[in-house]
Amino acid sequence: MANRVIAYEHLFQFVVNAFSAIGCSLEDATLGATVLLSADLRGIDSHGVARLSGYIRLWQAKRINAIPNIKKIHETPSTAVVDGDAGLGLVVAPYAMRIAMAKAEEVGTGWVSVQNSNHFGIAGYHAMMALEKDMIGIAMTNASALVAPTFGKEKMLGTNPIAVAIPAGKEPAFVADFATTTAANGKLEILQRKSEDTPFGWVQDAEGKESQDANILKKGGALLPLGSDREHGSHKGYALGSIVDIFSAVLSGASYGPWAPPFPAYIPIPTDMPGKGLGHFFGAMRIDAFRTAEDFKMHMDQWIQRFRNTTPIHAEQPVLVPGDPERISETIRRKEGIPLYESVYKDLVETASLLHINL
Amino acid sequence: MANRVIAYEHLFQFVVNAFSAIGCSLEDATLGATVLLSADLRGIDSHGVARLSGYIRLWQAKRINAIPNIKKIHETPSTAVVDGDAGLGLVVAPYAMRIAMAKAEEVGTGWVSVQNSNHFGIAGYHAMMALEKDMIGIAMTNASALVAPTFGKEKMLGTNPIAVAIPAGKEPAFVADFATTTAANGKLEILQRKSEDTPFGWVQDAEGKESQDANILKKGGALLPLGSDREHGSHKGYALGSIVDIFSAVLSGASYGPWAPPFPAYIPIPTDMPGKGLGHFFGAMRIDAFRTAEDFKMHMDQWIQRFRNTTPIHAEQPVLVPGDPERISETIRRKEGIPLYESVYKDLVETASLLHINL
Repeated sequence: MANRVIAYEHLFQFVVNAFSAIGCSLEDATLGATVLLSADLRGIDSHGVARLSGYIRLWQAKRINAIPNIKKIHETPSTAVVDGDAGLGLVVAPYAMRIAMAKAEEVGTGWVSVQNSNHFGIAGYHAMMALEKDMIGIAMTNASALVAPTFGKEKMLGTNPIAVAIPAGKEPAFVADFATTTAANGKLEILQRKSEDTPFGWVQDAEGKESQDANILKKGGALLPLGSDREHGSHKGYALGSIVDIFSAVLSGASYGPWAPPFPAYIPIPTDMPGKGLGHFFGAMRIDAFRTAEDFKMHMDQWIQRFRNTTPIHAEQPVLVPGDPERISETIRRKEGIPLYESVYKDLVETASLLHINL
Repeated sequence: MANRVIAYEHLFQFVVNAFSAIGCSLEDATLGATVLLSADLRGIDSHGVARLSGYIRLWQAKRINAIPNIKKIHETPSTAVVDGDAGLGLVVAPYAMRIAMAKAEEVGTGWVSVQNSNHFGIAGYHAMMALEKDMIGIAMTNASALVAPTFGKEKMLGTNPIAVAIPAGKEPAFVADFATTTAANGKLEILQRKSEDTPFGWVQDAEGKESQDANILKKGGALLPLGSDREHGSHKGYALGSIVDIFSAVLSGASYGPWAPPFPAYIPIPTDMPGKGLGHFFGAMRIDAFRTAEDFKMHMDQWIQRFRNTTPIHAEQPVLVPGDPERISETIRRKEGIPLYESVYKDLVETASLLHINL
């Protein structure tokens, strides 16, 4: 368990200071901190402050541009392509999502593919931006290759998450946000800290044989697509991860598949990159482009209530609606603070020292 | 194994005659036969002529309207809602997909949600309609509830498939088309015929316990979402199936979740249906709404070639690109004919007799 708890506001100011220290505008530093820490609030610890030093190292390696000129390079009434100018994905992504929402305002839906970006935090944050406008929000991104396709030995795809946020009425919104692998890389990191094995079906070794070694990715192994093996539908997880890769990177002109730029700054950029940087894809659909928001929300409330009231297998574990665990985490952590592993805290101390800021 | 092979053209004329016999126009009967048999050609035997008698029984039960007045009931420049007037989904779906494509022609993308429809055959057919226009095609549908959500005992969702078709250049198109469950219901039917067990992870029994009984759905059991169990990501498959349900049915005003109308005509329609009939969702995105089709296709060719050349685990089983098995099946079956199980053939004989047509 984590052995240190820091108030959200304190951590927020620290991250703003860190992004400011590398040269981000106050606006970008604030937005970047908001997006990054939404992961810690929502309990997705692998994508929050634990990654801050990784972003800083990418900036040191000149792979992240703190003062990007983010711009549309192509558009139609319902689409756009955005060049992130190697900016923080945490900042590029909301820029692109706002374009998608503005287009949805005009013509019903908006769809934006992004090239030349970097890691954008949790997909769910960007998808959820649409909710307050009574829109459905969609966000996805490609990522460093860690996943072997069905029947393959090589790491060819990232964990390529998909997030879909759907507004409801009295009920909280439906928010799905998941990696297209059986287990996200963050789950492996948790087991590594505890020196525990993974269940079968999460990873394979360098020869493509089943493995339970949480450190297997460092030994040539790979994560498995959602479904784990062919018999249990891994070709579907592989297809989903591929769709995310193509929408995010082939459609935008970013780098795709095994050429996606790696997050760890010490890993060299692949040679012969077919495109620019990482890619994202965003969508916004105005509910009333289909039916009145009032009718839709009434039915979403019924949908959510009916699913939450599914007869459970075990009385003590009710059926959840996507977004429930993250929302509960956010309520608790806003009040009680963000728990940090000592290793993550040490990492923040080092980052503070490097950037001459206080933690 | 199937023990009878019928030429595609012969089977096609038979299905045209069957749909004509229930009152469809020649145009609708021809389209319906084309869509239905695309499943048999592509090797998805559960969704082709094996279902013909099911459609006829729904027509007998007055749940399918052979002469529907399919119409748009709402639209914006990039969206529409279509009322299928209880028509054959095989006919309603291409109508809706053509609207999506026409909107994409105008404003870059088109998105159509459909209410008051019926089973639409394979999702892949509709998604692939977009390919010849250099568009990405997307198709999904909700379906009779057969799937239990993670932690639940009740059947709450259909196998709710997603299809995405993406054009390439010299390479054949990328065509993903999959149920959001670990195994589609058709796979269970194959095992039932052979009196074989399922692998663990495909189904659960009425109490939510693991099961290998291929007949368990008739005994209160349920199919499992892609991922099989919580530890292997079934909450992700559950979220995916839910997204398909909401986009197809809540957005359109169709009936959703456990209220989706059942395919077998002998199962009563659920009471208190919150919407009309089954729902579908279609999308079309013009490639050149993002970048030139030429550049995109060049990169898709590279994507496909690189993935197909992934180092395989076993030399005799190369890595496939989504759509490969179906395309190979179609090439063979167009030439050599459609293999039919004797039970399916008998079913066609009975349908021929009922409708006073020749097989």
